[in-house]
Amino acid sequence: MTIVGAGSWGTTIASLAARNVPVLLWAREPGLAERISTTHENPDYLAGHSLHPELKATASLPAAAEQADVVVMAVPTHAFRQVLAELTPHVRPWVPVVSLAKGFEEGTNNRMTEVITEELPGHPAGVLSGPTLAKEVLAGLAAAAVIAMPDLSVAQRLQSLMRTSLFRVYTGTDVIGVEVGGAVKNVVAIAAGMADGFGTGDNTRAMVISRGVAEMTRLGVAMGGDPATFAGLTGLGDAIATSISPLSRNRTLGVQLAQGKTVDEVTRSSRMVTEGVRASRASRELAEKFGVDAPIIGEIDAVVNEGRTPREAFRGLLHVEPATEGEAG
Amino acid sequence: MTIVGAGSWGTTIASLAARNVPVLLWAREPGLAERISTTHENPDYLAGHSLHPELKATASLPAAAEQADVVVMAVPTHAFRQVLAELTPHVRPWVPVVSLAKGFEEGTNNRMTEVITEELPGHPAGVLSGPTLAKEVLAGLAAAAVIAMPDLSVAQRLQSLMRTSLFRVYTGTDVIGVEVGGAVKNVVAIAAGMADGFGTGDNTRAMVISRGVAEMTRLGVAMGGDPATFAGLTGLGDAIATSISPLSRNRTLGVQLAQGKTVDEVTRSSRMVTEGVRASRASRELAEKFGVDAPIIGEIDAVVNEGRTPREAFRGLLHVEPATEGEAG
Repeated sequence: MTIVGAGSWGTTIASLAARNVPVLLWAREPGLAERISTTHENPDYLAGHSLHPELKATASLPAAAEQADVVVMAVPTHAFRQVLAELTPHVRPWVPVVSLAKGFEEGTNNRMTEVITEELPGHPAGVLSGPTLAKEVLAGLAAAAVIAMPDLSVAQRLQSLMRTSLFRVYTGTDVIGVEVGGAVKNVVAIAAGMADGFGTGDNTRAMVISRGVAEMTRLGVAMGGDPATFAGLTGLGDAIATSISPLSRNRTLGVQLAQGKTVDEVTRSSRMVTEGVRASRASRELAEKFGVDAPIIGEIDAVVNEGRTPREAFRGLLHVEPATEGEAG
Repeated sequence: MTIVGAGSWGTTIASLAARNVPVLLWAREPGLAERISTTHENPDYLAGHSLHPELKATASLPAAAEQADVVVMAVPTHAFRQVLAELTPHVRPWVPVVSLAKGFEEGTNNRMTEVITEELPGHPAGVLSGPTLAKEVLAGLAAAAVIAMPDLSVAQRLQSLMRTSLFRVYTGTDVIGVEVGGAVKNVVAIAAGMADGFGTGDNTRAMVISRGVAEMTRLGVAMGGDPATFAGLTGLGDAIATSISPLSRNRTLGVQLAQGKTVDEVTRSSRMVTEGVRASRASRELAEKFGVDAPIIGEIDAVVNEGRTPREAFRGLLHVEPATEGEAG
């Protein structure tokens, strides 16, 4: 198995899967690849955590691709297509490609499996997602995720490669639902973080999360996802984890925005990518395209991409007139 | 409007509604009723919070019932039927009765609106529920709830009596779904608290909450509720708030059980009722009756009512073989 991308989550999945099969991890930086292979640490993204001793890393994309009987793409959405295009000439036929990225492609608003199918037509394209904060998983705390592939038997085969006793992997076929949930939950987490930053309490936080998940569900169903998926680990579950965990970058962004910082100030101070900024814009555009009412997504996009103040946005959300619960607001 | 029961939530709703209409609050203890009417405080349940100055309280059930054009029952499930039976002779015809209790009746496993219909046939019976930690609402933090009545126009009338600028009340007609969610979320919160007590991290907590909400949904749909209700404020929303808030009694019970205390030790130290203990048994029995697979509910009932150790229960929950996500486990 080849994992493409040695960020915190790619490295974590690589280290877990190395218990089951030989794994090669691609890192862009040769120095980092060397460190991972020799010292079994990833000081750039997971300082202090020990990786599986048999995990090998390389900085050569052709070498990584040629060995792969499964390609796992652990690359942020903004680099996803480009890295995939570089891999493409070297990937063997029929090899399944699994996305770990949670977001839509900038400009096209494509899901990552759509990008995979465009770049590598004929390869089964799927996604692994769930409430999986990398540092917790690597520390051996129990967690669960879903591997969704169009063909359930392929998902079952991949499940057996990725699962460990404390990392539970469920199978599914709702690729669209899993991808939309993984992208939109980051927007929900920014909103929940903003509520926290204002000190509004656990009632409000629960209200923001549950109404955010309702928007995610409406959008995802309109895009072709199964409603049940959004009530599961990759929708609701991931939205909860990302919205409450102090380790979540998107939640932290919301907290700091509420405290008066700008998006630039927050993202400059972290080398990690905050996918929710891009996902806000894409989710809003998709909601408009599919005719879905999504006030929380709209307000968060206005804050992170248009300079609306968090206080105005929050006031806007609270002042919608309440009707029946099924209606937006 | 009459609120029957001067615990923390009954008192909070009474104080909010007093902004809109004259409210009479019934407290069992004459001394407490006196204190609420004169000093506008409820030192037994909400020490340090100021209540609305026009809120009046009485310890006379006949007086409380005779004045009511709406009866709001803020009494725990174990006393619900008895208090209602004492009220019955004094309640005027046609007056709607709204339950604030979150749980099932011991022995019968009836929902509270079923109890209302048995004791006061012909009265519209409904429920107000949501993620509403009393102290946060009273402190003026924004929160939202749902009033569900069989007739939407009655719900809309009650909405206008209860809502304030920071307490948003939605309307609905899925009385069953709202009641089942309110009861089962306390079981989910015990499970989530237990995970916290073991220090298992935010991934596991999110997994427990989302799979617990899945069990709640399966059970509630089998009982006649609308699936969408469980994804809303009164299902998911309340489950999140109760599972993450340090103010939640049911979550705290789970934490302390994981730390080795017994149910008796925890409940004896608090004058508040921990509804989740009874709800665990009732939910398990209802799941068996309706043929619904509910492993988390089963394990929590085994711990709180049968002496199973939390560690055994938790291991049981983690070791179910993962299949597709739609299946139980």
